[in-house]
Amino acid sequence: MPTDLVAALDIGGTKIAGALVDDQGRILLRAQRPTPAREDGDTVMRAVDEVLAELKGAPQWGRAGAVGIGSAGPVDASAGTVSPVNVPGWRGYPLVDRVRSTTGGLPVELIGDGVAIAAAEHWQGAARGHDNALCMVVSTGVGGGLILGGSLHPGPTGNAGHIGHISVDLDGDPCPCGARGCVERIASGPNIARRALDNGWRPGPDGDTSAVAVARAARAQDPAAVASFERAARALAAGIAATATLVEIDIAVVGGGVATAGEVLFAPLRRALGDYATLSFVRQLAVAPALLGSDAGLVGAAAAALAGWRGGSGGGVLARQRGAVAAESVGR
Amino acid sequence: MPTDLVAALDIGGTKIAGALVDDQGRILLRAQRPTPAREDGDTVMRAVDEVLAELKGAPQWGRAGAVGIGSAGPVDASAGTVSPVNVPGWRGYPLVDRVRSTTGGLPVELIGDGVAIAAAEHWQGAARGHDNALCMVVSTGVGGGLILGGSLHPGPTGNAGHIGHISVDLDGDPCPCGARGCVERIASGPNIARRALDNGWRPGPDGDTSAVAVARAARAQDPAAVASFERAARALAAGIAATATLVEIDIAVVGGGVATAGEVLFAPLRRALGDYATLSFVRQLAVAPALLGSDAGLVGAAAAALAGWRGGSGGGVLARQRGAVAAESVGR
Repeated sequence: MPTDLVAALDIGGTKIAGALVDDQGRILLRAQRPTPAREDGDTVMRAVDEVLAELKGAPQWGRAGAVGIGSAGPVDASAGTVSPVNVPGWRGYPLVDRVRSTTGGLPVELIGDGVAIAAAEHWQGAARGHDNALCMVVSTGVGGGLILGGSLHPGPTGNAGHIGHISVDLDGDPCPCGARGCVERIASGPNIARRALDNGWRPGPDGDTSAVAVARAARAQDPAAVASFERAARALAAGIAATATLVEIDIAVVGGGVATAGEVLFAPLRRALGDYATLSFVRQLAVAPALLGSDAGLVGAAAAALAGWRGGSGGGVLARQRGAVAAESVGR
Repeated sequence: MPTDLVAALDIGGTKIAGALVDDQGRILLRAQRPTPAREDGDTVMRAVDEVLAELKGAPQWGRAGAVGIGSAGPVDASAGTVSPVNVPGWRGYPLVDRVRSTTGGLPVELIGDGVAIAAAEHWQGAARGHDNALCMVVSTGVGGGLILGGSLHPGPTGNAGHIGHISVDLDGDPCPCGARGCVERIASGPNIARRALDNGWRPGPDGDTSAVAVARAARAQDPAAVASFERAARALAAGIAATATLVEIDIAVVGGGVATAGEVLFAPLRRALGDYATLSFVRQLAVAPALLGSDAGLVGAAAAALAGWRGGSGGGVLARQRGAVAAESVGR
């Protein structure tokens, strides 16, 4: 049987999603379980095994030649372990070994969830055709991943592109990560909402105090709501400009719940980029909304599996970057 | 005759240095002219031609197979042009074409001066053996370059690693680049001296108000001098931590005049890194003084020439990164 599919896992604090994905990025089959995030590590792993069991029960499973995992971080791709902040039962958990044995020894490629989003947007979305790109998720947290020189840049441990935790305000508010003034501390949805409330914005009769509600108020010109999005946009712009200045990117793709605010976020973001992206080689930097929705994590994990396995197709050339050896040949 | 040497040019606002360098990084012959920085572009180019003429007059010239140029930025390696801030006569100046014709059609590799320093420290200095490194110069300005995945990462235009102009204080003081709160605006030598003076430090009888004099005062526990170095260290730490968080590096090499302050800078820098490099995958980040001195620019330009020309040796694999084709084979 030809091995022209990969299995993809998207592991977060809320759900564990799995899919069989073909080499065009089409999802042929899905499986999903809630993440038992407060349980012990073995219980969490059982949920992963149930997702994989559903995939293995499908007639197409025999065509699967590799597994890609995008996981909430931090991950350690060099050790094959994960320690998702919101899954305390997994600390240095040997997920790669466990998945490899569950799947009968298939090669397994592990990357962080932000890196997976970047792989997906580069393969199928707004970063397609761009050799140097930053792809971000602005939501409850702020994450990201990098495409450099045409390839995914996961870094040695699979965590590169963590733009949410670079400091753009070295004297700023303490961040839960331990630093100060991180991009996430200023620009995440909860921080946008908190700042709007602190400055006098009040929710409507539905009591919704989410960033989505702040975005609605900003569209209606509520000054505190507008100012909170503008502040978030400045922090994002400083972080994006820093990334471009450090590694040279020509596009920043921004997705996630906060990005659904549309021009309420993107208009001040583009203006602020003009203030921070000042050197000649970053002035042309474009900003675009992400094109892939909730499947981005699965599609990106699949891209990483294809790249690691075939040493070139899909989202990048992970195998070469990490010195890994493609473990399977293409059977078609 | 075997072509086992490269010609290297280090072009700055003060001097234009040239050398013939062998494939072990040894400098066999030097030439130098002051940069006629306030003259027109052709006059500046004549100084470059004079340097090259000295090299061409040497008996070893026939063994030179490529030219590497490290230039004050910004540069545009994709266009082969340079626009050094301190050389107004050169704006989009076609330096690569000019050097290629002066040297009889040898392949020419152009990178920014910070990138050249990184190539040199990776090849011969403190970043040797490190596959992921940031190398910085903290002096009148703050510059840098990146080693990623074992290779020099110049970026498409040869400017990557410009850590001096990332903002770590988004509401901070205006920087000449147009942004605010850039690392250079806080941590460069002149800014260290200015801040110490503003806060009450007074120079000695020699009237020396340089950062070197501030460092002497800091070693003698002058509070304003100590505080100014500590502030610079925090800005450098935030920038280094941002770089590590974005691309995963395991060492930051710091050179330049300000770094000669030694522990006056490095002790608070290491402490501040603990405050900003907080995620699991950046906590082990090391900081080390640069090992190469004033020859780093020449050695790095030579490394780039060797890498671009042979597609692998020396500091990196520039040719592959830019899609260039090695134009010469090795004649030994």
